[in-house]
This record gives sequence, C-alpha cells and structure tokens, in this order.
Amino acid sequence: MALALAWAAKGMYITAPNPRVGCVIVGDGIVIGAGHTQPAGQAHAEIQAMRDARARGHDVRGATAYVTLEPCSHYGRTPPCSNALVEAGLGRVVAAMLDPNPLVAGRGLAQLERAGIEVVSGVLADAAHELNIGFFSRMRRGLPWVRLKVAASLDGTTALENGESQWITGPDARADGHAWRARAQAILTGIGTVKADDPQLNVRGIDTPLPPRRVIVDSRLDIAPDARILQGESCWIVAAAELPQKAAALQAAGHEVIVLPNAGGKVDLPALMRELGRREINEVHVEAGSKLNASMVREGCVDELLVYLAPSLVGPGQGMFDLPPLAQLGDKRRLRFHDVARVGDDIRILARFTNTEE
Amino acid sequence: MALALAWAAKGMYITAPNPRVGCVIVGDGIVIGAGHTQPAGQAHAEIQAMRDARARGHDVRGATAYVTLEPCSHYGRTPPCSNALVEAGLGRVVAAMLDPNPLVAGRGLAQLERAGIEVVSGVLADAAHELNIGFFSRMRRGLPWVRLKVAASLDGTTALENGESQWITGPDARADGHAWRARAQAILTGIGTVKADDPQLNVRGIDTPLPPRRVIVDSRLDIAPDARILQGESCWIVAAAELPQKAAALQAAGHEVIVLPNAGGKVDLPALMRELGRREINEVHVEAGSKLNASMVREGCVDELLVYLAPSLVGPGQGMFDLPPLAQLGDKRRLRFHDVARVGDDIRILARFTNTEE
Repeated sequence: MALALAWAAKGMYITAPNPRVGCVIVGDGIVIGAGHTQPAGQAHAEIQAMRDARARGHDVRGATAYVTLEPCSHYGRTPPCSNALVEAGLGRVVAAMLDPNPLVAGRGLAQLERAGIEVVSGVLADAAHELNIGFFSRMRRGLPWVRLKVAASLDGTTALENGESQWITGPDARADGHAWRARAQAILTGIGTVKADDPQLNVRGIDTPLPPRRVIVDSRLDIAPDARILQGESCWIVAAAELPQKAAALQAAGHEVIVLPNAGGKVDLPALMRELGRREINEVHVEAGSKLNASMVREGCVDELLVYLAPSLVGPGQGMFDLPPLAQLGDKRRLRFHDVARVGDDIRILARFTNTEE
Repeated sequence: MALALAWAAKGMYITAPNPRVGCVIVGDGIVIGAGHTQPAGQAHAEIQAMRDARARGHDVRGATAYVTLEPCSHYGRTPPCSNALVEAGLGRVVAAMLDPNPLVAGRGLAQLERAGIEVVSGVLADAAHELNIGFFSRMRRGLPWVRLKVAASLDGTTALENGESQWITGPDARADGHAWRARAQAILTGIGTVKADDPQLNVRGIDTPLPPRRVIVDSRLDIAPDARILQGESCWIVAAAELPQKAAALQAAGHEVIVLPNAGGKVDLPALMRELGRREINEVHVEAGSKLNASMVREGCVDELLVYLAPSLVGPGQGMFDLPPLAQLGDKRRLRFHDVARVGDDIRILARFTNTEE
C-alpha cells in the first residue's frame, strides 16, 4: 500500500477534480503492475495498473490489487473500475479507504465482494486521506479544503511596516511554498496584496499541466488592468456588488467576475468557499495580507495554516492576522499541530483548526 | 560513548560549577563500571567508574575508559583524574572532547599518552558539547551560556494587553520549561515581570539539590519586600545605582544587591553577564518581559532562544521582544534553528544567534 501511495502521489498535479489514486498489483509475491489516475476523463489507477501488468506480459487473474481509494462503481467520465476488476478476474482488492463520494461509498467494494473477490479496506487510511484531503472535503462538506499560507520571522512578523517582505524565509521554503500552490486548484488572494506586492501567484519550478486558478477578493473591482496577476491565465475576481463597467473590462480581458455580497457590503467569504466547492475546487491555497487572512479565519473559512518561520527576529511590522483583541485568553482560536518540519533554514508548521470538520 | 553521555546526563543537576561528565569502563568487551561526576569537591566521573568496577569485582587494568570530557590533569578541588587512570593501569582512554579549561586543554590526554595509555578524542563531541555548553562558554569566553525562554501563540503573542498570559502553552511545555530552568545555575528576570506576574521562578517537579539562583534586574530597587520571588532562597538583585537604604533592607532579608550601572543609568547587562561568569554561573535561563528580553537581545547578551509555540491564534497583545522597527529587512537579527520538537500539544524551538561565539 505504501508503494500504491507513492504511485498516487505521482498524480498530484494532474488528476483534479478527481482524487489522486495509485494502484499496485501483486501476483505470486511480486509487483506485476502499477499505475495512477490519469487526467479527468482518462483511465483511473486500477485500469492503468492492469494495463501495465498486461504490457509486461503478466496475467492479473487471481492477483491482489492494492488501491489507495475504493474502486469506483458508477459511470462518471469513465466506466466503473469495479466492473473492470471483476472482469479481469482479480483475486483480492485491498483499499486504503472507502470512497467518500456518495455515489460510491462502499458500493465499489460490495460489488467486488459479490463477485467473489476478497476485499479489505482501511490500510494506511490516514496517508491516503491526506493525499486527497481536498477531494474528501468537497465530497463530504461541499467545500474545498482551505490552506492558508503565511511566512514570518520567529517573532511573528510577516513584513515591515513599509510593506517590505522579500525575503523573510529562504529559497527552500519558497520552493516548498510553490509545491503547495501547485497541489491546489485555486490560489486565493485579496486586492490589498495585489496592490501592495503586485504578485503573479502562479506556480514556478514545478510542472503543472493544470495551473491553479487565481481567485482575487476585490469587493469594488479596484484591480488595475495591468496587475501582473491578470496577465497570465484567466482569473476569477470576486466582487461584492454588480459593477457592470468594470466587470465588462475584466471579462473582455478573459477573466470572470463573481458577485457574492454579504450583508456588510463585502465579499461573502463562506459563500465563496461554497461556490469554489461547486466549481470542483478540491484545495484552496490562500496567500493574502493580514486583513483578508483575519477575515477568512474569523468567518470560519480556513481549515489549516501553513506557516513558515524564519530564524530571525524582525520586531514590529505586519502580523500574520489582523485579528481583534481578545477579552480573555480562553477565547483564543484553537488549532492542533499536524506536522512540523525543517525546510532549508526555516521551519514549516501545518496547524489545523480544531473546529474543522474533515 | 553514547552510554557515557547518558551517565553524564545523570549529573545534570548536581555537578555545577563543574561540567557534567560520564565515564564507562569496558573490559573484555563488556561494561565493567560506570559513573558520573559528583557534586563539586567530590569524585569525578572516572573515579566513580573505577570504584564501580572494583565494587563489582572487576579489574580495570588494560580496560578502556570512555569519558565524555578529557580527564583533568590539574589539582582543583580534587586531585587529577589523569593520575588515577595511570595508576589504575587503564589500557585506553576515549574522550568525547578536550577540556576547554585552560588548566587542562589537552594536557590530560598528553599525560595519559606519555604513560603508555592509548588515547582517542573527538567521539560524539557535539553531544558532549551540548551537555556542558555553559561550562564551555564560561571557560572559553568568561561568560555563561544565556538561554532566553518565551512562550507564545502561533501568531507570536505572549500575553494579552491586560497582561493575561496563563496559560498560552500546555502543561507538558510548562514542565519542560522547568527542566530547562533546573539545568541553569541562574534564572534571570526583570522588575517588570516581578510586578506584573509576581512569579516564584523556582524549579518545580524536578529534584534540584542546587536550585538556580534567581537574579532580578531592578535598576532602582523597586522590588516589594513581599514579592514571592524574595520569599525562598536568597536572590541577587541588580541595581543601576547605590541605594543604601533599599539595599540594606534587601540584604537584611538575606539577598545580595549588585550595583552595575551603565552610561544610560540602567543596569549594564553585558557587565552583569561577565559578573555571572565570574561567579561560576555556567548557564543562565532568562524569563522576562518583552522589554528586558529586547534589551538582552540588543545588547548581545543572548546566545539562544527557547521558544514554545502553542497551537492557537491570540491576536494583538504583548510580543516576544519589544524591539525597535527596522529600516530594512536586511537588518533583521539572524539565528539558526538548532532543534525543533513537539512537546505535548506545543512546539519547542531552540534557535541560536549566528553571531554567538560558542
């Protein structure tokens, strides 16, 4: 299964909106075939692995398939994998976890069992879940998994008061940040960051056939037409009001304007998350300033923080989140540390809000 | 040598101002004796290990002694260990590192070699250095190793504006903090923290026959006679002026007043560090507020930061260091992360200033 997970990871940047799935087929104690999910509409991992085995002259009858997600049993963009496994005469199927897609959800394994195939599930389920945390979030909640990235000095400063923030963290952390951008289907920022830093927010250094959609929260469509973020792939720009003239100019440049106002006249962030889920965005990567960061946190739109801490003290400046003061410490927003790692000279921390339903 | 280091660690809280040293004697491929340095004036590790071997009926002639620091060759509070090793007829001595004490510094091993004993040094030297980082600092620089502890939320806040700071980190981190206090010979704080939190700053939960000396930076001797920190063991109170009446009252209560003014009328912190070194303090543990923390950092008195980060967002409040704003990011104070660990629900980071001479 660990090998199947490694194969699944090979599909990291190509399978969206489908999950990243790997499959390894073992016959007579040796690996006879392996594969991972192809881009949407093409073969799933099980089909790829069986093709691989046959191409190498192996017979898959009676063999065991290790697959990182329950084989699908419904007709989607492709026919059900469960049918193919039954027809091929596999003897045993070991799944890391059940498919959370309500159209599958145990039916895939049940169908295999009815056809006389031995089935097992729950092997290395946590690792399989992490790989597709966004897909599962969308299936279960209708919402993408939202990861918010900040880079700060050890004393928690992300930029000087004058806005200077290049660079607090080192090149390894920045490269690692691009890998996290690349695995998301959307990168979310705010007009404040666009005005202050004029970022591209694209993926550099990683081959991404499906570049993440840049999404800009810009209540009044104040974005300048020559902003660098607008020069590449089409963006989604989220406004809080119908602003036909400004919207028309952006649309003419190939971008889409989404209007989602809340009662306060700002962008309705929870509604935006639902909309991104509806648009089959599995993972959202947020890189914004302390104001939008704080709004996202306060409105319960963030599932985890991706924090890079640099080995430096910067002193006063901009913080990670522009949150209001607390009356008492008991009101602090609680997380749990999910992962802590050294990345180059920096530290990378993944912390999840404890009220997040996964 | 790893076993000898484990023995050395058993002397963690008892050997000061001497280094923590362990010794393991191996004869015919088995461990025949082991020991660690006893309290100052009593036996060193090598003597203890040889006694242990003899008490268990073993002959140490021809055996190998693994010792975490070069055996001493001078008469201090005890006679030289090198003499004892020669007299006992050891065949081989493996030292983790040379003794930085200028009275030894290679002479111990040289004496053994002259007596026909095979000597090796430099085995697991880094681990041996860490164990006695304060002793080495004092021998090489005349200064203690200064470790500054802060506990903060993930967004870098140590307390609310109203001063509430109990508790940001969890019980495991607090217990871990007591272990770091216990290994220091002095705990340094400022009058601001004494007034705000009225802490005891003693060691709880760890058996410490040599409780660390509490040192309070209190320029004008403003400390209240009923402050909890003054109720236990004798403190050193550091003033910036002769204040005979206040000093007399503190002295009458069993405390010592040290007067070390700088040109600005405050306590001369670098001079205080030299004074602590002169008083045979190997490691200083700083637990203070953001003002004294910042002064210590700005005046180059801090060697490493011991940072506990809690899995929470607190928002605005008191920061770790009350540093002045930087004109440009290039002026940031640079550290390197030495160790990162999970402690209970929190993260513990050890970061060392890159300009620190070790």
